[in-house]
Amino acid sequence: MKIGIVGGTGDIGEGMAMRLSPFFDVIVGSREADKAEQTCKLGSETLKKRGLDCSLKGVSNQSAVDDADIVILAIPFKHLDGTLGTLHGFENKIVVSPVNPMEKRDHFVFVPPAEGSAALLIKRLLPKEARICSAFNTIAANKWKALDEELTYSVPVCGDDEEAKREVMAIVNKVSKLQAFDAGPLAVSSMVEALTPLLLNIARYNKMRDVGIQFR
Amino acid sequence: MKIGIVGGTGDIGEGMAMRLSPFFDVIVGSREADKAEQTCKLGSETLKKRGLDCSLKGVSNQSAVDDADIVILAIPFKHLDGTLGTLHGFENKIVVSPVNPMEKRDHFVFVPPAEGSAALLIKRLLPKEARICSAFNTIAANKWKALDEELTYSVPVCGDDEEAKREVMAIVNKVSKLQAFDAGPLAVSSMVEALTPLLLNIARYNKMRDVGIQFR
Repeated sequence: MKIGIVGGTGDIGEGMAMRLSPFFDVIVGSREADKAEQTCKLGSETLKKRGLDCSLKGVSNQSAVDDADIVILAIPFKHLDGTLGTLHGFENKIVVSPVNPMEKRDHFVFVPPAEGSAALLIKRLLPKEARICSAFNTIAANKWKALDEELTYSVPVCGDDEEAKREVMAIVNKVSKLQAFDAGPLAVSSMVEALTPLLLNIARYNKMRDVGIQFR
Repeated sequence: MKIGIVGGTGDIGEGMAMRLSPFFDVIVGSREADKAEQTCKLGSETLKKRGLDCSLKGVSNQSAVDDADIVILAIPFKHLDGTLGTLHGFENKIVVSPVNPMEKRDHFVFVPPAEGSAALLIKRLLPKEARICSAFNTIAANKWKALDEELTYSVPVCGDDEEAKREVMAIVNKVSKLQAFDAGPLAVSSMVEALTPLLLNIARYNKMRDVGIQFR
């Protein structure tokens, strides 16, 4: 299965690509294809040093969409509208949103768009044939990159297309010790996206780092 | 320290009273004082059978407010406005809200009041000298009541009065293996209250029961 990562050279995307590439063909997209190639070269070297086989290819964001079966939008909320406006070809693709609309004031605050959540904004922006899920919202960039660390977290997954949601949950369950949980339809993705500013506040006020969650 | 529980004979309040009473003087309030007395009699017997000393007293909701240093509002969101309208004397008391504004449609949805959260609604309804915190939002009624079960959960606590928040966190940390986390000011209590409908959906869609959370 081919997984494309739009924004694959960013803070979250880079570690995500490395964690996924031992199991899937990962296509790292970037605004600059050169940068994506460089990220993949470094990532492959890092993984080979650990004795891990991997499949990483660096391309433009558009090629990452075109070549993949599943597209992860690893972009900050503020760039969502702009980036999606430059891309096409999402019809019938599974599109995964790890995006959290939030602002840093004195503390972190969940600030959803008029649609109610980033996932619902993506639904409005993309063609109706795109099969949108939210997932991976609460995994911190540092955790993705810390390849020697096991990720013992729960990952809530929302989506309206049950088959797409099952596929995304299967991908989640491949990564380290992540455990996917069905969190319902996209209509309630706001409650998942609000977890990240909550966890950032928990980290800040309790002198912790990169806090995650477990359901139990 | 005296802890009053408004709605102390309800689903959540009853288990809460039993879990707290080995450590604190617990004053169980109810619209009907007789019912509160009966609940305390049964609760005391249950605890004594387990060899636990306890201090439980059943009174009216108003007496629970009057006699306590800390008042927990163990009432459903829909009764919040009505119940608080019948009570007075909250000045300088620490008031704890475990209340979650939510609705059950096909799935559970967080439906906050205009103020943004139940805790912020309580802030508007009570005198400005009340020291409001939110806590215990995600602990299910069944877990409170299952006295033989250890509660290995995280409990986010919000509040604007730092001293009150520290006292509430100390109370949380007394109960079983609950662990309190400072989740910031009341302004972000909505992100804590939204956890409960999320957890109810997780339980529903993954065939689980009484799901809780851990931060880690």
